[in-house]
Amino acid sequence: MIVDTLAIVGTGLIGGSFSLALKQAGAVRTVLGVGRNPARLTVARELGLIDRAVDWAGAGQADCILLALPVGETEVVLKNLAPHLKAGAIVTDAGSTKANVVAAARAALGARAADFVPGHPIAGSEQSGPGAARADLYQGKKVVLTPQADTRADALATVRALWEAAGAQVETLDAAQHDRVFAAVSHLPHLAAFALVDELAQRADGDTFFRFAASGFRDFTRIAGSAPDMWRDIALANREAVLAELDAYVAALQSLRQAVAGEDADALLKLFSRARSARERWLAP
Amino acid sequence: MIVDTLAIVGTGLIGGSFSLALKQAGAVRTVLGVGRNPARLTVARELGLIDRAVDWAGAGQADCILLALPVGETEVVLKNLAPHLKAGAIVTDAGSTKANVVAAARAALGARAADFVPGHPIAGSEQSGPGAARADLYQGKKVVLTPQADTRADALATVRALWEAAGAQVETLDAAQHDRVFAAVSHLPHLAAFALVDELAQRADGDTFFRFAASGFRDFTRIAGSAPDMWRDIALANREAVLAELDAYVAALQSLRQAVAGEDADALLKLFSRARSARERWLAP
Repeated sequence: MIVDTLAIVGTGLIGGSFSLALKQAGAVRTVLGVGRNPARLTVARELGLIDRAVDWAGAGQADCILLALPVGETEVVLKNLAPHLKAGAIVTDAGSTKANVVAAARAALGARAADFVPGHPIAGSEQSGPGAARADLYQGKKVVLTPQADTRADALATVRALWEAAGAQVETLDAAQHDRVFAAVSHLPHLAAFALVDELAQRADGDTFFRFAASGFRDFTRIAGSAPDMWRDIALANREAVLAELDAYVAALQSLRQAVAGEDADALLKLFSRARSARERWLAP
Repeated sequence: MIVDTLAIVGTGLIGGSFSLALKQAGAVRTVLGVGRNPARLTVARELGLIDRAVDWAGAGQADCILLALPVGETEVVLKNLAPHLKAGAIVTDAGSTKANVVAAARAALGARAADFVPGHPIAGSEQSGPGAARADLYQGKKVVLTPQADTRADALATVRALWEAAGAQVETLDAAQHDRVFAAVSHLPHLAAFALVDELAQRADGDTFFRFAASGFRDFTRIAGSAPDMWRDIALANREAVLAELDAYVAALQSLRQAVAGEDADALLKLFSRARSARERWLAP
């Protein structure tokens, strides 16, 4: 047992899977659920993701509270929670951006911001909602924590232990570096996939294109099935880094365009070969 | 039995899978292999993809000859084959672009171009080579044939029957329309994936980025593992349509950039929601 009582704000794929994994590992005794949508909380209880639904006052009595929500909601949720936090309670989150979440925690929690451990599990799916939750979602996956200078050491240790109990490998990064890295390897690909699908869908003869799209297209655009509100929040929360990545990507596409327009077979072969090798190195064990 | 003897020029994933599927279906008796690389032909024979290796003169005696090669090699191969083609022999191909292949067939085959049936199986994998071939590669997949006004009707019927015996659904399209459609749903995504991986790999701190890349990145870039020479040829062979798609994609990314820069939450939510819905409609049975 790592903590007696865990509260989950947002009982969807991420929060629900955290709960299932910790229950299975015997790392928590009781899991409470908080959310605006009573029907969703009922489903979460029926699926065994939470033991019972509580209000903010109830959640504040938990030993650890995980926020698993679109990152744009962080500050409002922490403000709701702040007056009710019991002494020693730890708050953490699972948001895909970290600098804005750290700022939200400072604004909402004041001195209690030292009890907040910013986190980001690198796991997910284009599926969402309580029905998508599964106990093994974090097995072998990375979780990045971005503790601040004043983050309580024992709060950090507890959050680390919880993620490890859920099967994850925990790493720490500076929050700004986290945001730059994930702008490149996650946020940009999501935006690029959404843009590609939407561009085709907007065409008058879009159906003809989709009719012949196959497995390459399916995999390239899998992440365009992700939750729109979550990705709106990420794009805005990590705006500067996302814009820099969009610019770098457009520049890369323009340079590729130049090689195609100039029929530069050698440049194309080099670019494609470098990319394939880099990807193979990345995938190699 | 649809044809007695089939010859495959290029005994890799595409040609080898065609052979395995037709042998399994009892649609061919003998499969001959042609290629520049003797070691590869030996592997193909050992794997049962071909019965024996032959030269151009031997291949010309087959009832049907499939070209399964990077499209840039089409004209040279057809010129090698042309003097040896027996009366009634049918030639077909599996290239990802069609207008350039049709032009190559006219240039190389002259009057015998009526015996050429341009084809494109919409199946594949980022894997390549004889070892990747499998009998079920085409099961349930689309194959697009782009017959010309003068294509021999019985040659078209035979090629259609072969692909159907291999498990595929055959459709016909105008060659130019084929190239426009596949520029959008296949060629552009491949180029976009290659460009993304290469852009990251070129960075001095590229390793840090790859270290945190996860399943979304893996799927988005799966097609960047494809054969570089094949994709160089496709980009050049379908240059005009590929450039038009690159321009449309860059414009879509610029418009998305504007929404992020202007913090237009509503526009982002609408774009992401439209994309997700379009993809769901596409995937729905």
